[in-house]
Amino acid sequence: MNETMLEELVNNALREDIGPGDYSTISCIPADVRGKAVLKIKEDGILAGMQVAEKIFRMREPNLVFESLKKDGDVMQYGEKAFTVEARVHAILSCERIVLNCMQRMSGIATLTKEYTRLLEGYKTRLLDTRKTTPNFRLLEKEAVRIGGGVNHRFGLYDMIMLKDNHIDYCGGIEKAIEKAAAFVESQQPQLKIEIETRNLDDVRKVVAVGKGKVLRVMLDNFKPQQIAEALSILDGDFETEASGGINLENIQEYAATGVDFVSVGALIHQAKSVDLSLKAVII
Amino acid sequence: MNETMLEELVNNALREDIGPGDYSTISCIPADVRGKAVLKIKEDGILAGMQVAEKIFRMREPNLVFESLKKDGDVMQYGEKAFTVEARVHAILSCERIVLNCMQRMSGIATLTKEYTRLLEGYKTRLLDTRKTTPNFRLLEKEAVRIGGGVNHRFGLYDMIMLKDNHIDYCGGIEKAIEKAAAFVESQQPQLKIEIETRNLDDVRKVVAVGKGKVLRVMLDNFKPQQIAEALSILDGDFETEASGGINLENIQEYAATGVDFVSVGALIHQAKSVDLSLKAVII
Amino acid sequence: MNETMLEELVNNALREDIGPGDYSTISCIPADVRGKAVLKIKEDGILAGMQVAEKIFRMREPNLVFESLKKDGDVMQYGEKAFTVEARVHAILSCERIVLNCMQRMSGIATLTKEYTRLLEGYKTRLLDTRKTTPNFRLLEKEAVRIGGGVNHRFGLYDMIMLKDNHIDYCGGIEKAIEKAAAFVESQQPQLKIEIETRNLDDVRKVVAVGKGKVLRVMLDNFKPQQIAEALSILDGDFETEASGGINLENIQEYAATGVDFVSVGALIHQAKSVDLSLKAVII
Amino acid sequence: MNETMLEELVNNALREDIGPGDYSTISCIPADVRGKAVLKIKEDGILAGMQVAEKIFRMREPNLVFESLKKDGDVMQYGEKAFTVEARVHAILSCERIVLNCMQRMSGIATLTKEYTRLLEGYKTRLLDTRKTTPNFRLLEKEAVRIGGGVNHRFGLYDMIMLKDNHIDYCGGIEKAIEKAAAFVESQQPQLKIEIETRNLDDVRKVVAVGKGKVLRVMLDNFKPQQIAEALSILDGDFETEASGGINLENIQEYAATGVDFVSVGALIHQAKSVDLSLKAVII
Amino acid sequence: MNETMLEELVNNALREDIGPGDYSTISCIPADVRGKAVLKIKEDGILAGMQVAEKIFRMREPNLVFESLKKDGDVMQYGEKAFTVEARVHAILSCERIVLNCMQRMSGIATLTKEYTRLLEGYKTRLLDTRKTTPNFRLLEKEAVRIGGGVNHRFGLYDMIMLKDNHIDYCGGIEKAIEKAAAFVESQQPQLKIEIETRNLDDVRKVVAVGKGKVLRVMLDNFKPQQIAEALSILDGDFETEASGGINLENIQEYAATGVDFVSVGALIHQAKSVDLSLKAVII
Amino acid sequence: MNETMLEELVNNALREDIGPGDYSTISCIPADVRGKAVLKIKEDGILAGMQVAEKIFRMREPNLVFESLKKDGDVMQYGEKAFTVEARVHAILSCERIVLNCMQRMSGIATLTKEYTRLLEGYKTRLLDTRKTTPNFRLLEKEAVRIGGGVNHRFGLYDMIMLKDNHIDYCGGIEKAIEKAAAFVESQQPQLKIEIETRNLDDVRKVVAVGKGKVLRVMLDNFKPQQIAEALSILDGDFETEASGGINLENIQEYAATGVDFVSVGALIHQAKSVDLSLKAVII
Repeated sequence: MNETMLEELVNNALREDIGPGDYSTISCIPADVRGKAVLKIKEDGILAGMQVAEKIFRMREPNLVFESLKKDGDVMQYGEKAFTVEARVHAILSCERIVLNCMQRMSGIATLTKEYTRLLEGYKTRLLDTRKTTPNFRLLEKEAVRIGGGVNHRFGLYDMIMLKDNHIDYCGGIEKAIEKAAAFVESQQPQLKIEIETRNLDDVRKVVAVGKGKVLRVMLDNFKPQQIAEALSILDGDFETEASGGINLENIQEYAATGVDFVSVGALIHQAKSVDLSLKAVII
Repeated sequence: MNETMLEELVNNALREDIGPGDYSTISCIPADVRGKAVLKIKEDGILAGMQVAEKIFRMREPNLVFESLKKDGDVMQYGEKAFTVEARVHAILSCERIVLNCMQRMSGIATLTKEYTRLLEGYKTRLLDTRKTTPNFRLLEKEAVRIGGGVNHRFGLYDMIMLKDNHIDYCGGIEKAIEKAAAFVESQQPQLKIEIETRNLDDVRKVVAVGKGKVLRVMLDNFKPQQIAEALSILDGDFETEASGGINLENIQEYAATGVDFVSVGALIHQAKSVDLSLKAVII
Repeated sequence: MNETMLEELVNNALREDIGPGDYSTISCIPADVRGKAVLKIKEDGILAGMQVAEKIFRMREPNLVFESLKKDGDVMQYGEKAFTVEARVHAILSCERIVLNCMQRMSGIATLTKEYTRLLEGYKTRLLDTRKTTPNFRLLEKEAVRIGGGVNHRFGLYDMIMLKDNHIDYCGGIEKAIEKAAAFVESQQPQLKIEIETRNLDDVRKVVAVGKGKVLRVMLDNFKPQQIAEALSILDGDFETEASGGINLENIQEYAATGVDFVSVGALIHQAKSVDLSLKAVII
Repeated sequence: MNETMLEELVNNALREDIGPGDYSTISCIPADVRGKAVLKIKEDGILAGMQVAEKIFRMREPNLVFESLKKDGDVMQYGEKAFTVEARVHAILSCERIVLNCMQRMSGIATLTKEYTRLLEGYKTRLLDTRKTTPNFRLLEKEAVRIGGGVNHRFGLYDMIMLKDNHIDYCGGIEKAIEKAAAFVESQQPQLKIEIETRNLDDVRKVVAVGKGKVLRVMLDNFKPQQIAEALSILDGDFETEASGGINLENIQEYAATGVDFVSVGALIHQAKSVDLSLKAVII
Repeated sequence: MNETMLEELVNNALREDIGPGDYSTISCIPADVRGKAVLKIKEDGILAGMQVAEKIFRMREPNLVFESLKKDGDVMQYGEKAFTVEARVHAILSCERIVLNCMQRMSGIATLTKEYTRLLEGYKTRLLDTRKTTPNFRLLEKEAVRIGGGVNHRFGLYDMIMLKDNHIDYCGGIEKAIEKAAAFVESQQPQLKIEIETRNLDDVRKVVAVGKGKVLRVMLDNFKPQQIAEALSILDGDFETEASGGINLENIQEYAATGVDFVSVGALIHQAKSVDLSLKAVII
Repeated sequence: MNETMLEELVNNALREDIGPGDYSTISCIPADVRGKAVLKIKEDGILAGMQVAEKIFRMREPNLVFESLKKDGDVMQYGEKAFTVEARVHAILSCERIVLNCMQRMSGIATLTKEYTRLLEGYKTRLLDTRKTTPNFRLLEKEAVRIGGGVNHRFGLYDMIMLKDNHIDYCGGIEKAIEKAAAFVESQQPQLKIEIETRNLDDVRKVVAVGKGKVLRVMLDNFKPQQIAEALSILDGDFETEASGGINLENIQEYAATGVDFVSVGALIHQAKSVDLSLKAVII
């Protein structure tokens, strides 16, 4: 993860939450008092956000004492502790909510992701996230997917060509879209892989007809597992394949059983719920 | 909502998603082609994010045609349409994901909020959000709560004094915390209301003893409805009251029945799931 | 005070003053020479800006030696010294003007504020500042008021509802304005206090008629002390009261004698004059 | 004035004052209501900030109607009007305070500057400002000095070499400082003029001895008018001259009578008091 | 190209060049005078930067008249004209240098790129740029390569895996580096292509041994054409191939004759020289 | 050089190059591995960018070990080493390209500048750069000119008045332009020197007629050496002189022989080619 971008993300969050000042803390705690706090785990799941938490605290007090008791990706259980921090109480309390908001959301995503990836054990199919993320927080949401064992799809519009229904429709059909995109990649941006969305088996056949050597991956959008199987047969191993749409914890193994390379699940991020964590003062 | 802050939020999101360029669109659509698209509703709920969507599109093409078919706060049903937009296809497709990410998350929050507020109809109790939001997206998450009929708690650490468990513990007890905070507000920041968290009925009695005329609102944290009732009796109308912790769609009416002024539910935001919306090309 | 915002304020100021480079210093002092300087007080008053000064120097050289000889809020007299700093001479000289510009303006405000607050000793009336501040420097101007013993009114448009003459006039009268604002606060933002401006005793009576339990504070704008007294009698203790307009060092005690809760004086900030301070090389 | 920098200054100020939202206005005025307001002059002086005011309003609503009734630099009298603006009421009220804070401070500076420049009529001596400005607001404070008939000294540390007491002391004397600075300018930055501060007539003689053809201007710091006259005689027309320190409205003509080229007066900016202006709703 | 990033790049450039103000223009041209200027071509080459130029002017004056006489990628000859612009003279002159600096550098790159790509006509080999660009100007330098007929290699460290000598050496050898990177891509970021640098034929053989199906492209660094041919024979069509190091206008066809897929030439950007263009007032 | 501006420049460059993450390094090197690297010189020239390189590395890891083996301005020869750095391998590799891009371009400029300045040894004529720089990288390009022994012309539009052909043409002639600019400087910005461009000997005579005491320097644009000599004779020592246009390594001594004060050569920057440097892992 790019530390410059993480620092910018954290500085923006500190401005958003603290504004001119954390008056609750200023009003009742002297500025030079030091204290200790512990991160308590209140819900089972997969822990994510430890590195981010340490970074946030250090951005306000570079030399504080941060002791990690667990690490990103660990299974966590109710009652465990994730870290302790010793610093100025002002620094601890002013950062508390931002640290928790990052860790709770990241751990929620990692936990949900892990539920999916456990179901994929034994299958070759891998689990992808999507660009359906919270604006200005994608960096950490995608990091959480990785911590949960998932695979990052492209980070943005710039690191892969993905021709979706709207591109195809505005462009006048799959064949034209593939042809133009392949010419662009060939002539201008060869580091980009091309993926194309198909909506039915006819689309799949069109891709086979014109896309070999041009398209790397075919997205099978809203195909039932049975249709996936047919599509894989048509594609005949010449393309990577990605199933998308309507995949959930109940049916993911049916999809995996087809042998599809990837399933992409936006829900990893946009349906994840925060995990309960709390930061509590340690009074000695 | 402050437009300057909204513009900054949107510019950051455009940088995050588009990076150096939207190569999918660049590769297959000429830069000057104009097109039309429609926002399709794929799931029932409460619509939120219409103003934000229009703003995002206009930031890329000030004079495009944006026709609203519904408005923020409207009930929406599967199959309806929310707006149409006519613009350069490049502008439509480059903004598509950001518009959807804002609207889907905002509509998810508004929809969940409305589920809660419907249950509160007929009660005097009002529904509050919390600061448990996604970093760098709070502006729109809190806006969504309002669209769903909820009430915004403080926006950040700066617009209310709220003495929580950690403040009290570091400070050495409820009485000291109230005394210090009240002196601070009195002498330095009288525009700030003071709220204090209580963890049991003893805490409530301490607030009554020292907090009259100083504390405006008492948070009753993790009290059962029966305990809330006792607390209200002790507080005797001298303080606003806010129940917090463990409140959900099943039990919210039990809380409301106690006559508590507010219930605060972080879940409105951190447990909301995105609502399904899509932006589709209109090919004429 | 939010350190992230202070750092941003200081970075902007360093860009503004230094631009591509401090050529005076570069031209005549080698980059690695270290030196010492002392902050000399050239005028009696109240000292403000010590914490800010240390922060500015440390942002350019984290480990320099900064020795405080006085602290924020202290009475200072011509001939005294406030601090010494030992650092690279380049760091000292490049920050000199920014440090002085902050401290001189902050001390000017603190000194003027203290003149007012001394006159209020023995009265219950407290002294408020206003939003009449220098754009992009409010954080430090409001801090200076607090150092001088004053009380901060709202920080911006977002942390209090204040219905002034223009709101009332565009809205169609005091009653309508109160009703709408109270409904908004009740239904959407209960952390906000409401204050309303009145221009005469009729206005005051209207507030009494419709504002109880809704409006927290009544501003009495441009009332003479005698009118203030009448207004207080009409308001009968049901509202906080704030006198505003035309209050100065000559007449402030007449206002205080009425028993009004607050007097607000924009002049604390916008009529304050800088106090004379200088930073001088210590040549050993 | 650089519009990019002005836009940045205004955007920062809008963030500072409005934060998440102008709730006073939101609470009582519908978002689409349009209105008209007038800028009323409440105090005699020199008007400054008209262009800035129009810019601020247009940044929020590009096509509003702004009618100027006076222009920057005009004499203004109590009771006159400076402009009218017709726009969404939300835009008018959210910008009101920022517009007034800019115009009042700028007009205060322009008015005080004009008092000085009127006294200099008939003399060749010109009036300079200094770098004693409010951090992050210098652009408009220096603009106000120009509107008031004053002359801008250097904008920052980068557009002129100015060797002050501290440079000289750290450097080991006037001769060394001049020599080094002249060598630097000669060899690296010839667009920079050199000015040197002198503290007594001995210093002046040293400048004459080594500075001809190198130093363009000599600052005579805290010289009495009689000493200025002696210094001018010593300098014998070979240098521009600037008197500085202790110059005020009472004695400025004595300084001018010496024939000194410039007098610099930091007080133009740091002792200026805001002029009373107000923006009032026009109810038709 | 992402317009948000282009706007940020241009705003930064306007701050850099104009600072507080363009005093040359302010001093001698009234602010409301309008004028016309023409972009004159002073040197043969390939034109690049037309869209950027229009954007820069429109950012300062949205409704100016910009008439394109040629377009990006056109061959240009001494004496031709590229565009005319009619606007406020202040806008024209304040943007003149920035427009020229962008266009001259971009045209220089496009012109040099075209020299290379012309030599590749008839060969299947395509020409790549590199990350050896000017910091904070890469967006436009890579755009210029495309305008000149070249192909963009990865935009930054984030859109392709490229294992160079240092990665291999720190990692302990080619095999380990490939294995780790492939596992990472497989498990976490499948949108990323992997390229590996080889320094000799032994390295190439190692890639063949372990890299099939993992590595997409092999960089042959500092190979002579004869060695390239051997490498291609070893790689046997299972990998894309990129020759790098020491390729210039004299020898590029020897490289192309080997049948290598790509040649990458950092010199396109870092050895390009600006093309002579000028913007001249049209006096009617 | 202003460190705040340098930090901003570097942060922007780190965002540009690294984006969400340096996946090449992340994929194959553990985050906590430390390593050592050496900067190898691959081409003779003048070294520039050492201070910048150290700054970049320290911004990512404040306490790393950076050992300078040479310093800015030193002659460097193929095979020498400039520095070693010991740090986390992630920090070394993520900064490698940015460090090299800065140093290669800066050294290229310093090397080319030195070629010119060596030719000027023994002449009084000094070598100036221009504003023909790469947007958003001027700070370091001008620094490189100084390291190479050149002289910085104005940094931007704000630190000198320079009346070029377009100003003169829009303004209606040299006399008018001088008159207006001199009045502006006299009345408003006396820290600014005035330079005027002349296109022929008639222009020069006009400057002599009206510019004495107003114009400091005359630019002789596209004059042949013989014409320069005539111009100098006409100007008769009353003005600084600057030759510009068409000056190169072949003819610069002919220009210097005329006795002109300055020659300005945009080519120092815009025709400079990067010098070959590389950063290589030291495997122990």
